[in-house]
Amino acid sequence: MAAVTTQPLAISLGDPAGIGPEIVAKAWDARIERNLPPFFAVGDARSVMRVWNGPIAAITDPRAAAGAFADALPVMTVEDAGDIVPGVPDPEGARCALRSIELALGLVRSGAASALVTGPVSKSQLYAIGFTHPGQTEFVAERCGVSGDNAVMMLAGPGLRVVPMTTHVPLSAVPDLLTIDLVLHKARATARGLQRNFGIDRPRLVMAGLNPHAGESGAIGREEIDVMEPAIAILQAEGMDITGPHAADTLFHPRARARYDVALCPYHDQALVPLKTLFFDDGVNITLGLPIVRTSPDHGTAFAIAGQDRAEPGAMIAAITMAGEAATRRAATAAAVAA
Amino acid sequence: MAAVTTQPLAISLGDPAGIGPEIVAKAWDARIERNLPPFFAVGDARSVMRVWNGPIAAITDPRAAAGAFADALPVMTVEDAGDIVPGVPDPEGARCALRSIELALGLVRSGAASALVTGPVSKSQLYAIGFTHPGQTEFVAERCGVSGDNAVMMLAGPGLRVVPMTTHVPLSAVPDLLTIDLVLHKARATARGLQRNFGIDRPRLVMAGLNPHAGESGAIGREEIDVMEPAIAILQAEGMDITGPHAADTLFHPRARARYDVALCPYHDQALVPLKTLFFDDGVNITLGLPIVRTSPDHGTAFAIAGQDRAEPGAMIAAITMAGEAATRRAATAAAVAA
Repeated sequence: MAAVTTQPLAISLGDPAGIGPEIVAKAWDARIERNLPPFFAVGDARSVMRVWNGPIAAITDPRAAAGAFADALPVMTVEDAGDIVPGVPDPEGARCALRSIELALGLVRSGAASALVTGPVSKSQLYAIGFTHPGQTEFVAERCGVSGDNAVMMLAGPGLRVVPMTTHVPLSAVPDLLTIDLVLHKARATARGLQRNFGIDRPRLVMAGLNPHAGESGAIGREEIDVMEPAIAILQAEGMDITGPHAADTLFHPRARARYDVALCPYHDQALVPLKTLFFDDGVNITLGLPIVRTSPDHGTAFAIAGQDRAEPGAMIAAITMAGEAATRRAATAAAVAA
Repeated sequence: MAAVTTQPLAISLGDPAGIGPEIVAKAWDARIERNLPPFFAVGDARSVMRVWNGPIAAITDPRAAAGAFADALPVMTVEDAGDIVPGVPDPEGARCALRSIELALGLVRSGAASALVTGPVSKSQLYAIGFTHPGQTEFVAERCGVSGDNAVMMLAGPGLRVVPMTTHVPLSAVPDLLTIDLVLHKARATARGLQRNFGIDRPRLVMAGLNPHAGESGAIGREEIDVMEPAIAILQAEGMDITGPHAADTLFHPRARARYDVALCPYHDQALVPLKTLFFDDGVNITLGLPIVRTSPDHGTAFAIAGQDRAEPGAMIAAITMAGEAATRRAATAAAVAA
């Protein structure tokens, strides 16, 4: 098998008024110390210059990125973001953020970049310019031709991976959204994703119950009995290593976490609360089920501290590292299959 | 002001087939090392003898407890629990557990004991013998003549206190249960409880949103706008130090926790997941809003390890310590008022 070489990663800078440009630049600063794979940024180069004094290499072709990376942060300017004021988002910035994701994604899909890392965007700013997707994950999935049920948002920190089976929907909508089909799709995509992106041959999945104490045998809600148990039985019959539904409150302490590779949770906060409680500064969001690798730092635009040199790049660095490793693993698998 | 003396604590042993008897006995073993206040157990003394070889003083009057405590674990047998097999619960054991709570509670209400600590019971066993309360908290509240809205279950670990504003109900029922009135009652009882039991003059409360990202200004659910914000405005107008609703997923990391004394959460898992994720082995459940002090270790009967000398008494010790401190504080306040 020939040596596997991968293209640079494409990183969308996110909202130009948020901390995205700063943390991407700071990740570049840490490229040697943290052994980061080559990457280039997509956005408006001025949003980086406004918050960072390091060297920038303006590029128009991703092929120039790898050569430039050692000495400068390669940035491909996609669209003029208008007047950029850190901490003060506006519609022009939101449009630039959206175009950045689209271009970076296109470059990954075409093979010119090996993986997509997306910087933080403001959902309310995107909604204001007509963005109709619940978040970047759903947008990227649709652009890749993958249905929402099959795209999985997984959050990962050192020692915990969680998948919310429903995401940015009102809590009151969750019980009806939680169907056997949804559970099957999410569990299968998660298991495959752990194999493809993380090299875990036989991933151990656990599922958290919807209700307190996982319903206590139907005494506190029936979704565990009517939906989750039948779905888990089907998945086990397929050979999947999956157990549950378990009481959520006892699923995330250190001894419990040692017993599984990923926890599937019925709703957003059940997954995100333990992840961010434990790993607030270095959580990574990775989308499973896509034809490409896509990761993101698991935090927002932090407008309140933008432009003050206070943003911590830890989660962005973790997202870049995870994307690079997953891309290398998938390229190696593809090469092995082709050989 | 005269010196404040308090009566011994009354501890119900919980289900005799669970780990309750073992952890109460182990707490007695640690009485000197952990500087525990005098206490006596209420249950069936045989359930302790079955799992522990230490000295037991059978008492029939709480006044005998303080004198006996130095040399033996005082136990008041309330009812024959039938054949006790650790790990194998039965209805006779459940009846004994229920009678133990009732007697211990009565002794605290009469002033013969200074505070109530309840050992773990099995809800499903209690339901099987006709118990109609969601849990011990509601049962104790009713026996004290306090309505459910005004009794507050607070969970506390070292560095985090949380209050689930709804408890053992199906998740689908939570949005309708979350009313302005409920929020007002829970917040007021919580603030008063922190003052009375913990001596925090001006407690800092935060409230977690119901929906992901606290609803994102109504984009992901309206309960924050329709219920929580108006309730918080009323509480602030009363002078309470309370903020929110905040996104739950960013409310529990170390820097966030430093900013408040207690987090009010709309539902069980949102409160219990961070508490047990961080403090699985020493979480304490304390009921606020009662005329008495009542605490409990925040774990279950653990039938699977009962009778194997594997149960950790950390949470029971923490519950005894907290109950003793709260009882002393309340007695001192009462003495100061009377003086």
